[in-house]
Amino acid sequence: MQVTVWQAPGPKAALQRASAQLPEPGLDEVVIEVEHCGLCHSDLSMIDNAWGMSRYPLVPGHEAVGRVVAVGSDVDSALIGQRRGVGWISGSCRHCPLCLGGTGNLCASLEATIVGRRGGFASHVLAHQDWAIPLPQGLDPAAAGPLFCGGITVFSPLIDEGISPTARVAVVGIGGLGHLALQFCRAWGCEVTAITTNLSKAEEARGFGAHAVLGLDQLAQHSGHFDLIINTVNHSLDWPVVLGALAPLGRLHQLGAVLEPLSIPAFALIATRRSVTGSPTSSPASLLKMVELCSRHQIVPQVEHLPMDRINEAIDRLRRGDVRYRFVLDAPA
Amino acid sequence: MQVTVWQAPGPKAALQRASAQLPEPGLDEVVIEVEHCGLCHSDLSMIDNAWGMSRYPLVPGHEAVGRVVAVGSDVDSALIGQRRGVGWISGSCRHCPLCLGGTGNLCASLEATIVGRRGGFASHVLAHQDWAIPLPQGLDPAAAGPLFCGGITVFSPLIDEGISPTARVAVVGIGGLGHLALQFCRAWGCEVTAITTNLSKAEEARGFGAHAVLGLDQLAQHSGHFDLIINTVNHSLDWPVVLGALAPLGRLHQLGAVLEPLSIPAFALIATRRSVTGSPTSSPASLLKMVELCSRHQIVPQVEHLPMDRINEAIDRLRRGDVRYRFVLDAPA
Repeated sequence: MQVTVWQAPGPKAALQRASAQLPEPGLDEVVIEVEHCGLCHSDLSMIDNAWGMSRYPLVPGHEAVGRVVAVGSDVDSALIGQRRGVGWISGSCRHCPLCLGGTGNLCASLEATIVGRRGGFASHVLAHQDWAIPLPQGLDPAAAGPLFCGGITVFSPLIDEGISPTARVAVVGIGGLGHLALQFCRAWGCEVTAITTNLSKAEEARGFGAHAVLGLDQLAQHSGHFDLIINTVNHSLDWPVVLGALAPLGRLHQLGAVLEPLSIPAFALIATRRSVTGSPTSSPASLLKMVELCSRHQIVPQVEHLPMDRINEAIDRLRRGDVRYRFVLDAPA
Repeated sequence: MQVTVWQAPGPKAALQRASAQLPEPGLDEVVIEVEHCGLCHSDLSMIDNAWGMSRYPLVPGHEAVGRVVAVGSDVDSALIGQRRGVGWISGSCRHCPLCLGGTGNLCASLEATIVGRRGGFASHVLAHQDWAIPLPQGLDPAAAGPLFCGGITVFSPLIDEGISPTARVAVVGIGGLGHLALQFCRAWGCEVTAITTNLSKAEEARGFGAHAVLGLDQLAQHSGHFDLIINTVNHSLDWPVVLGALAPLGRLHQLGAVLEPLSIPAFALIATRRSVTGSPTSSPASLLKMVELCSRHQIVPQVEHLPMDRINEAIDRLRRGDVRYRFVLDAPA
């Protein structure tokens, strides 16, 4: 099948529109005709080969939403016509203990949507059926794309770690991830605090559900308060202050891929059973729960739309941090 | 009540036998006539004022076992004559959310046995009744003392964190804490690996329950293997290697009070949901479960006995690391 893709010919290059041959769907795969695809910071890292695992030409895009137009021979043909969303992961082995245990996002053989294969900035994208998540009624497909990477990334610290609605939660960073984390935490029933270096976002943070907004430099005044701190920021923080803001049994959940190691005083963990965790997106089961919760609570990414052929404009603006809070590229009508 | 104590007159000083006035037991307290008291490395830290919270004269000793000889007015007098053990904590407020929630060891107002009060190197020691743990049948009182600090410290990572018997557990350091951790992990049903820089202890480690013994420098060859690593060592390790030895969802539990911060690569946590935790002893409920498990599984500290008036000899040898695996000082007959 001949398809259209937007691809980077080499590291840090602008994307170019091209034609490509889509492989036949595997036994367990579906072909999705892309309607919308969010732009994530990881797309930039992959375009730039920042993680050393890019192959070119590279077709980025891993927050895709569209309709199933063809299925592999092991997939129920009733899926054709359904609207589904695909995130960072497009498949996993299904047979290892991690997949069998419901944690396929930790599978050592997982297939990442834009690693060694073509992603969602294209007319069509392939995914294994269980990783193509049906959109429930009430979830706007034009805005939903960012849920499948940014959204699930911040949903995991709540659902997979069994956070109680009684928890006091802080979200550090009010960006593509943070603005969704605030909405999830509010729907979860928690006390929600947004923490930012940019207090001009305070009013918007309250709109996303924050009960309070703090400057990062005010955190030291809230010693022992938070049961969970979700850190979406990818640069070093004053870790003793961050840990000091945790209550006994509190947890720092690191999502930002900061390159410098975290410097963690042992005593800050030992004295009151605090912990430091991290996670990479989540499983199909958690994705299904997430979209249902989003539908029930009107949780929606705040997005700016551009047509797919202006993808390079979106990339340039994201590189400058000029987006509130996520770009979604729309396929030609 | 006039009692005998062994006290340090100032920082780093040898202990001296002295006479002291024991206060009347508070409403909720019991007076224990000490029969045996273990010597823990924390006693040295307190004698030396290493943590800046020592008051002199200082009576160390917080692994005490003996009989209740008097009780406060709110305590059932049936406790008199019972044999009980007291560890690092001798009381907590009982009214804060942490105490009410069963985690009194995290109470902000907890009373530590040798901080601002007299410990177990004495003829008598005071403790609040719930922190004086009854010894079950079959637990040797002469050897049990180290369970109440060293033992509960390594038992907490299993009981309080809900470790499964299917877990693969490594214990780093085969000393006062580690030799008990190996016994607990074996009784727990886990795969047990001892990790040491001193392979001359390998045979003894197997005797404590290790299925395998590894040199610390071999850990890099066991990437992704362990569900839990209990680290009893109080100096810096090659943290990326230690984290790399954790399986997906694996946990590093830090018990050694290493002064240099742990240097933790964020990606080592994020990629497969690994975590880093720590803990300080545990609660009365976990202490009760621990001694019952010890009785059922014949878990016992391996101790060397000295009479109480040779306490300084024990301290000097512990400073040199010359003990396998714990000293217990015995009261005069």
